[in-house]
Amino acid sequence: MTGARPAEAAQAYLAPAALLPEGWRADVRLEVGADGQLTGVWPGAPAAGLPRLPGPVLPGLPNLHSHAFQRAMAGLAEHRTAVEDSFWTWREAMYRVVATLDPDALQAIAAWLYVECLEGGFTSAAEFHYLHQDTDGRPFSDPAEMSLRVLAAADSAGIGLSLLPVLYQAGGFGQPPTAGQRRFLHSDDGLLDLIARLRAQVAGRPDRRVGMAPHSLRAVPIAGLAAVVAGLHAQDPTAPVHIHVAEQEAEVAGMLAHAGQRPVQALLDRVGIDPRWCLVHATHLDAAELRGLVASGAVAGLCPSTEANLGDGLFPARDYLAQGPSAWAPTAVSAATPPRSCGCGLGQRLLLRRRTVCLPPGEVSVGGGLWRGPCAVALWPWACRWAGWPSGSGRTGWSCGPTTPPCWGWMVTICSTPSFSRQEPRPSTRSDRGCAAGERGPTPAPRSAARRLSSGAGPHPLIGCRGGKAIAPGWPRRPRPPFA
Amino acid sequence: MTGARPAEAAQAYLAPAALLPEGWRADVRLEVGADGQLTGVWPGAPAAGLPRLPGPVLPGLPNLHSHAFQRAMAGLAEHRTAVEDSFWTWREAMYRVVATLDPDALQAIAAWLYVECLEGGFTSAAEFHYLHQDTDGRPFSDPAEMSLRVLAAADSAGIGLSLLPVLYQAGGFGQPPTAGQRRFLHSDDGLLDLIARLRAQVAGRPDRRVGMAPHSLRAVPIAGLAAVVAGLHAQDPTAPVHIHVAEQEAEVAGMLAHAGQRPVQALLDRVGIDPRWCLVHATHLDAAELRGLVASGAVAGLCPSTEANLGDGLFPARDYLAQGPSAWAPTAVSAATPPRSCGCGLGQRLLLRRRTVCLPPGEVSVGGGLWRGPCAVALWPWACRWAGWPSGSGRTGWSCGPTTPPCWGWMVTICSTPSFSRQEPRPSTRSDRGCAAGERGPTPAPRSAARRLSSGAGPHPLIGCRGGKAIAPGWPRRPRPPFA
Repeated sequence: MTGARPAEAAQAYLAPAALLPEGWRADVRLEVGADGQLTGVWPGAPAAGLPRLPGPVLPGLPNLHSHAFQRAMAGLAEHRTAVEDSFWTWREAMYRVVATLDPDALQAIAAWLYVECLEGGFTSAAEFHYLHQDTDGRPFSDPAEMSLRVLAAADSAGIGLSLLPVLYQAGGFGQPPTAGQRRFLHSDDGLLDLIARLRAQVAGRPDRRVGMAPHSLRAVPIAGLAAVVAGLHAQDPTAPVHIHVAEQEAEVAGMLAHAGQRPVQALLDRVGIDPRWCLVHATHLDAAELRGLVASGAVAGLCPSTEANLGDGLFPARDYLAQGPSAWAPTAVSAATPPRSCGCGLGQRLLLRRRTVCLPPGEVSVGGGLWRGPCAVALWPWACRWAGWPSGSGRTGWSCGPTTPPCWGWMVTICSTPSFSRQEPRPSTRSDRGCAAGERGPTPAPRSAARRLSSGAGPHPLIGCRGGKAIAPGWPRRPRPPFA
Repeated sequence: MTGARPAEAAQAYLAPAALLPEGWRADVRLEVGADGQLTGVWPGAPAAGLPRLPGPVLPGLPNLHSHAFQRAMAGLAEHRTAVEDSFWTWREAMYRVVATLDPDALQAIAAWLYVECLEGGFTSAAEFHYLHQDTDGRPFSDPAEMSLRVLAAADSAGIGLSLLPVLYQAGGFGQPPTAGQRRFLHSDDGLLDLIARLRAQVAGRPDRRVGMAPHSLRAVPIAGLAAVVAGLHAQDPTAPVHIHVAEQEAEVAGMLAHAGQRPVQALLDRVGIDPRWCLVHATHLDAAELRGLVASGAVAGLCPSTEANLGDGLFPARDYLAQGPSAWAPTAVSAATPPRSCGCGLGQRLLLRRRTVCLPPGEVSVGGGLWRGPCAVALWPWACRWAGWPSGSGRTGWSCGPTTPPCWGWMVTICSTPSFSRQEPRPSTRSDRGCAAGERGPTPAPRSAARRLSSGAGPHPLIGCRGGKAIAPGWPRRPRPPFA
């Protein structure tokens, strides 16, 4: 690793251990510039005079799929409403929540969620934002009102945000929107105007991006989809495009009936997808669609806890990985529940009745695969792209992330638990590929780190979030784990 | 509800809300006798002069399946060791850990786990304890050494414990034990002697029970199984018997090849199971075995996170529930990871591609089903039985649990998060069955309670565990959430 000379750093810290691209390293000096970007990373640094971080340091992860308002309905749909509850009955419960939210509520809920994301190790979120209009479906006096509230929530929480205003125009294949959907609706031009307005709003902010999210092929007629995406890219040729696709078998059947093609095949053939695209859920793919997805360079944005909760099904992860895709983002989480570490591997294990099945090519560690894989926004430039960030740059390889005080450097520090190091066995199979998160650290700390991550420990108050800050007047402070 | 007159209580508390057998009730006075048993429960009580608990109160849950030492290997098997990792390669990793543990280590690890169980809302554990002998397979100078260490760990953590010494005699169907299994081995008489010794050790302790755990039909020849269980019941006719069964397809195939019967059918026909039995995992059952299990009154002890992690497969929960079993224990957790709330419903949703599929007959709430179901040790006498506790008794219906200071009453209080109550919709379908955990509380608090539970909030330091107590010399204090 190289970096600016230590004296140039605006601030520096000593991490007892850090996961660098080459593996775990001990005593890492992290230098942060005045703009919050990492300017230098120095393993094996002398400790003298530096504030010592309270645990090992990992790069932050992006949450690739957030519907912030759904945080308010956590638990509300865990109630039987039909003989056969499904995604579709869940959606009715969600619409009932939608009908009640005003701008103040949206902002408060989103701020709460974003603090939880930070506490869970997610240092940025891609907000798939579809709650645009007033309760009667008419625009607010400022048509950008709800989007601005989402941005304000991200500001108050101190999280990076890719805002993806949603295009929603239909209530199903060839169907008009329902009353429950009226708050989501935009014309193509209306959405592009909103995007232009929001781009101006965040101009100059390295921690804010604006993209677009055509909701789904159920909600956006495919005939006009390429044109509206072209309108986005006329404003910003690098802007990310996220879409829900093939989440439910009924959606596949509906698209076949309506357009004679399966959803992902239709995107491939009639819209065109490329590395700017993130296909969210992408659960039901046939072999040709899977090959097309891999060839496109688009990413599959999986939400394992959502896909289990809603009974969607399981993405064909092993077949996908066997094709050596450049893209793989299994840590995306939904906002319906607090963020969790990746559940993808567990579903796949149930599907295949095997263990450690969800590893990228050449990877042997489940935890290491998550952090070394393209989910690690701050380590790999190509990961940043799907979260909507510009590609990585800079001398360290770390500085692709946006940042704003107090989220210096987009790192996450982890509270250690006892290492059981006296009893700790070493894996019988070792390699020289660098140490894996959770198993091969130079000290017991990284193993503890992975353990804490899996149980949801939060970042250090100094790094990654605003510890204990009340995020809305009158709300209780978040309980926070004390760090020794 | 009835109870002793308030003046007779050794101590009393006011819960802002509590889940009682009839549903959520507000302002509940909880009276605890000098022995720690609940002596009275008074909904709608005047608050004057009582210490107010910091959140809503739920009855504690039993952890029906713990292998405490496995807490030390969390993460160590999340590492690819074979082209097709499986339960069987995981077991090799586990044996490597087993080879390193001395009595001090076992006690420290178990104490740590039990504190985590308490923090997760589990107020008792059934310890499926198979690490008996020294590293060379010979007995310790006190053959009960390791069992006594488990009891000592439970004492230091302050958790209820059903100790289930494991009978382990074979390395597979008709196979001698391997070197990796030598620490597990007992003769029938040796195990019955150990059980007698442990029964004497815990005599007079209402929070301790001793049962037996024939490890599996792989590890215990079925021919002698009925006799050794009879030896247990000669000592204690009510003692619980837990067994791993039909966890892996290879086990089913092996039993068919060895004995001409599937494992659960063999238990039904050749051993006999009854309501004292808990069949752990019970993943692979045919229709006849499922009917036999229901008819027997034995409980299926599911460990959803383990069964996913190990690629076991999914218990046929919907078919089971459709037969109206009296027994259903989906919250059992393995000790390999910190305890979590029930993941059973999520696996079933993936299997069936439907939601809310894991509800007992007549139940509409997922959370309510967990707490009103047989998992709720303190609410339903028949639940206590499988955790090894005597049936409930007393006027309140709550006082079946063992208890020891400082675990008064085996209740769990929950830290509230904001209720979003202004935005909170009500389910459109309501019933008069009482309110469900998470959805229908008399105040916003119970909904918050369910939310915190799903994200792993711990119990109040005063109720359910020893907050912040160092559990082994030199170990760091557990980080604990501060309660407002």
